[in-house]
Amino acid sequence: MTLQRWKSLTDWPLMVTAILFLAAYSVQVLMTGPASDVAGWFLAATWGFFLIDYVVSLMLAPQKARWFLHNLHVLAVVALPMLRPLRILRLVTLISVLQRVAGNALRGRVVIYVIASSALLVYVGALAMYDAEKASPDASIASFGDALWWAFVTITTVGYGDLTPTTLLGRSIAVGLMIGGIALLGVVTATLASWLVEKVSAQETKSQEITTEELQSLRDEIRMLRDDLVLRRDAST
Amino acid sequence: MTLQRWKSLTDWPLMVTAILFLAAYSVQVLMTGPASDVAGWFLAATWGFFLIDYVVSLMLAPQKARWFLHNLHVLAVVALPMLRPLRILRLVTLISVLQRVAGNALRGRVVIYVIASSALLVYVGALAMYDAEKASPDASIASFGDALWWAFVTITTVGYGDLTPTTLLGRSIAVGLMIGGIALLGVVTATLASWLVEKVSAQETKSQEITTEELQSLRDEIRMLRDDLVLRRDAST
Amino acid sequence: MTLQRWKSLTDWPLMVTAILFLAAYSVQVLMTGPASDVAGWFLAATWGFFLIDYVVSLMLAPQKARWFLHNLHVLAVVALPMLRPLRILRLVTLISVLQRVAGNALRGRVVIYVIASSALLVYVGALAMYDAEKASPDASIASFGDALWWAFVTITTVGYGDLTPTTLLGRSIAVGLMIGGIALLGVVTATLASWLVEKVSAQETKSQEITTEELQSLRDEIRMLRDDLVLRRDAST
Amino acid sequence: MTLQRWKSLTDWPLMVTAILFLAAYSVQVLMTGPASDVAGWFLAATWGFFLIDYVVSLMLAPQKARWFLHNLHVLAVVALPMLRPLRILRLVTLISVLQRVAGNALRGRVVIYVIASSALLVYVGALAMYDAEKASPDASIASFGDALWWAFVTITTVGYGDLTPTTLLGRSIAVGLMIGGIALLGVVTATLASWLVEKVSAQETKSQEITTEELQSLRDEIRMLRDDLVLRRDAST
Repeated sequence: MTLQRWKSLTDWPLMVTAILFLAAYSVQVLMTGPASDVAGWFLAATWGFFLIDYVVSLMLAPQKARWFLHNLHVLAVVALPMLRPLRILRLVTLISVLQRVAGNALRGRVVIYVIASSALLVYVGALAMYDAEKASPDASIASFGDALWWAFVTITTVGYGDLTPTTLLGRSIAVGLMIGGIALLGVVTATLASWLVEKVSAQETKSQEITTEELQSLRDEIRMLRDDLVLRRDAST
Repeated sequence: MTLQRWKSLTDWPLMVTAILFLAAYSVQVLMTGPASDVAGWFLAATWGFFLIDYVVSLMLAPQKARWFLHNLHVLAVVALPMLRPLRILRLVTLISVLQRVAGNALRGRVVIYVIASSALLVYVGALAMYDAEKASPDASIASFGDALWWAFVTITTVGYGDLTPTTLLGRSIAVGLMIGGIALLGVVTATLASWLVEKVSAQETKSQEITTEELQSLRDEIRMLRDDLVLRRDAST
Repeated sequence: MTLQRWKSLTDWPLMVTAILFLAAYSVQVLMTGPASDVAGWFLAATWGFFLIDYVVSLMLAPQKARWFLHNLHVLAVVALPMLRPLRILRLVTLISVLQRVAGNALRGRVVIYVIASSALLVYVGALAMYDAEKASPDASIASFGDALWWAFVTITTVGYGDLTPTTLLGRSIAVGLMIGGIALLGVVTATLASWLVEKVSAQETKSQEITTEELQSLRDEIRMLRDDLVLRRDAST
Repeated sequence: MTLQRWKSLTDWPLMVTAILFLAAYSVQVLMTGPASDVAGWFLAATWGFFLIDYVVSLMLAPQKARWFLHNLHVLAVVALPMLRPLRILRLVTLISVLQRVAGNALRGRVVIYVIASSALLVYVGALAMYDAEKASPDASIASFGDALWWAFVTITTVGYGDLTPTTLLGRSIAVGLMIGGIALLGVVTATLASWLVEKVSAQETKSQEITTEELQSLRDEIRMLRDDLVLRRDAST
């Protein structure tokens, strides 16, 4: 079996696992008691799945050292199961599948991709932040609602500062969301700009089509000229 | 009667209703006593108008299920009269009419549309925020002036954080305004970028026109050549 | 005398007056004692100059009602001498002259214009803010240094919120500076985007130049063909 | 020896010196005791190197007065060794070398350049800020971790305001980082916009390639026509 084939086989299972992982992680963070315990067992199972995928991919890769270096982020996702909020990085899988769907992306798909990624980023960022700050005694983010509010305030780069992370882990997550905010702003603006530029250049394209038409008529004229010559030659022989 | 015809018939009445709704809502939020009561009755009347429009549109639609799914936001606007600040969503009507006016939009119209939408968004956002926070005992937004100031600070993504919403409803409105701010930034930048790109590419267009001219002269030359040949043929016969 | 001629005559004097006005206003806000009093007299003199310009322009305008409606902002600048910080609006003159200098603006000039306008906006905004908040007992902006810091924090849309205006006038000035910040962000991004788009399209332009070259060679070939025909005709006669 | 030659000779040594300077400065700010003292001596040595480079460059310059005016920022870097955090300006050398590497920059290189510059800006800004605020008794930025967190919050223009500089030097550094943030936002957006514009215009380019192909076929046809004529002439003689 080749790496390519393994990838296409595990594409959908990995995505489903990522979604289930997100659901189980949400339950574990937001609930307490038996539901949280069950979710914990479930998370361990999804972790096993990611581990198997990593090991098999590494074994199937033709150049093992090269694959290892290009997939350090996957190793980080698999090897850091003790830092709970960072496990969220496993959702990289989800985003990369989303990216493949929007693959040869033009503007229409970019819009859907931006909305889906932003919503995912806000939800996952709030979840991880709540998980990271829950234990801190002087945390200002005290509930999941607060964490969601904080995530929106951060990703739009508004940054009121009424709620801010206090732990190192919380601040790391915040930096990730801020970078997401910069990217969000950039993509929204770029999509609008490209749409406007195209609208404006549509008129120029029209004038180019005229040129192509003219070229065609010119070609026809030369063909007629040649036919003329051939006719004359036939006539003179 | 078709849905198209109903739409064109109710276009202006709906817009006038939306403006009257905004005026009545402003009175109800900002004033007390009999004026507020009268505005309340008036709001109920505009609600009736929106309800009638929704029901008639649904009945005239050829594919009722499809129309229902594509117009869930209209249903939300009609069916949520108890959540007072969210009624502001009815102004979607105003914005969509504005959008139609700026329909086949080039830059000039985009500018007017951006200024008008931003002003409307700031005013309506401040109104809804004041309405939502008025009753909360620990609200930091205590007057309509405060709400307006907060709306400007939020839509420009400055976000001082001196005034922030404390209720769930207030925070939902704030998220709407933040998204509006991202869109505002995007549209301003995109309009400027498209203008600059066009200015710069104007010079390239000039060189293309030269090419078109050259093509024309080439064509003339071929025509002369053909005329030459025809003349010679006439001479030799 | 026509309005056009009056405008071109008063262009430079108005600009010099605006710069002197800015200097005098700075002295009045930042100093106390006799220097401030002298600056006060000077400001009254510049106000007289603006008033004269307004009256003469109105009298020279061919359609007085139309000119009046299109120049309401000039009237506001002249008629509001009692609201001290708003007098700063007179500097609109400075910015509009700057705009004319950068008139048929390409990117190089846009960059200089952006830097100059931003610096002017920060300085003037800080000056007006300090003037507006000086008298307020619960102001957090207590010195001109604070006001400058606040202006930078606001125009970059960072918005820490450590210092915020408390008076209505101060908040109005802040809204102006926020809008300036949005514009600044937009212009910076647009200039960069247009530069990148041009860089990328430079390669395409190169291929078009090849096309033009090819066209030229094609034309030469046709000319040679025609010369051939002419030579043959001369030979056969 | 010419100035050009001196520049190309000192290019790499200057870059290495700048990196060593950054390391030594980090040690001096973040550590105490003998390590800090050693770093202090080292910093003096790098300062000597920058001074030598400045003097030699000035002596080699053909137009000394002109070179002096165009390199005032280099003089500032060399002449301000007492304002410790501002010495960081010497890293201008690093950024300008980075810029040369990304010289004839297209998008791929722009991305690397942006990431590297942003990371450098955040690290150096945090270092200088910590150095500037360390001595202030009412500073809210109390550790290097705090300074890093502040730098991220500032460069993304989020601006929570939980930590803000209090000294004049700290505020100057903050303004620099804010301007860096505006530039970062602009470059990210512009790169995305240029990528999207290119993707969209790729289709138009395809139609232009068809035109070039058509031109080629037209040219072939004319050549055949000429060959025909030549053949006929040979036949008739």
